[in-house]
Amino acid sequence: MKIAVLGTGGVGQAIATKLINVGHEVKMGSRTSNNEKASAWVASAGSKASQGTFAEAAAFGEIIFSCTKGDATLSVLKLVGENNMDGKILIDISNPLDFSKGMPPTLFICNDNSLGETIQTTYPNVKVVKTLNTMNSVVMVNPALIPGDHSVFVCGNDANAKTETKKLLNSFGWADKNIIDVGDITNARGTEQLLPIWIRLLGVMGHANFNFHIAK
Amino acid sequence: MKIAVLGTGGVGQAIATKLINVGHEVKMGSRTSNNEKASAWVASAGSKASQGTFAEAAAFGEIIFSCTKGDATLSVLKLVGENNMDGKILIDISNPLDFSKGMPPTLFICNDNSLGETIQTTYPNVKVVKTLNTMNSVVMVNPALIPGDHSVFVCGNDANAKTETKKLLNSFGWADKNIIDVGDITNARGTEQLLPIWIRLLGVMGHANFNFHIAK
Repeated sequence: MKIAVLGTGGVGQAIATKLINVGHEVKMGSRTSNNEKASAWVASAGSKASQGTFAEAAAFGEIIFSCTKGDATLSVLKLVGENNMDGKILIDISNPLDFSKGMPPTLFICNDNSLGETIQTTYPNVKVVKTLNTMNSVVMVNPALIPGDHSVFVCGNDANAKTETKKLLNSFGWADKNIIDVGDITNARGTEQLLPIWIRLLGVMGHANFNFHIAK
Repeated sequence: MKIAVLGTGGVGQAIATKLINVGHEVKMGSRTSNNEKASAWVASAGSKASQGTFAEAAAFGEIIFSCTKGDATLSVLKLVGENNMDGKILIDISNPLDFSKGMPPTLFICNDNSLGETIQTTYPNVKVVKTLNTMNSVVMVNPALIPGDHSVFVCGNDANAKTETKKLLNSFGWADKNIIDVGDITNARGTEQLLPIWIRLLGVMGHANFNFHIAK
């Protein structure tokens, strides 16, 4: 499958590399067509890897991963352009974190709205799925790094888009029993609100190799 | 030890009964001195159980459990009176849930503040500890109900108050390895923000016998 990855940071690199490793063609998108980090990634990732602007990447992808920092997500999607996303699945991994007021961070969209919902409302023809936003990037693409069962949440309004997303999660190593569908995109409020305690736990534990598990 | 439990609902009853079962004297507090639910609880809980007004209960307790619904917490503490709490440990289990705008519920204090912090700010001489607010009442007092490890978060500004609270949690069945101290009372933001996804998971699972576990 042809997949776009928007963002060249830790999350973008981890997702893009994993997608290549499980057999997809990936175009990494950034603000320019010759981004240094994207170029380095393409050079190391082999013949199925390419790069371009956000718009070029999204136009290339049948599925689009939104991996930018949360405070850039909406402006990046504006650069992508609605016509390059319409009818496609957009998997949003970003979080609306605001560190400007110190620790613990606040969320710049929160409580009665979420970043996931805002994307869906702004682009009604895009099939937004929120997932993977509640863990470190290394865990996203290698859940076996943490022993035993632990959870990844999925939400979105389009059932088929969630099914396709779950297949990708399976290919990343997530067993069906650990993928929890929490419903429509309004539930992005709940998963995004996991971030304040996640970041605090990062400080308490001193490492990012942990994840939420719903024990039952 | 003499302990006050403020609230006669499911959480108050569960905590009060457990405290009796592990050997404490408990006074259950409510708005009146002859509350029907508190009377029924006293009748069933034996000679170490008593009831009274919120103020009478707090005056009796060396430690106070705040088990009312979140939207009543601050008004109940006003009825308690600062003089009945000063210098004592107040263990706050309540959550600032607002169901008035439908599902998923919102939080009436959120993001850059929390109910736990608000109590601490309002009553600076009270040693506020936030804990147990991220699970169902049956799990609070019987963690073995859910197989394997799962987590209870503790936060507060006073180290000794947290140590005393952890001893009570031990007596409820919580192993030290599953008690996670997430720091000062500002981290109540993080644990209270777990509620929107908790309530959604309640709907997805169809039962409340689950809990967050930090897998690592």
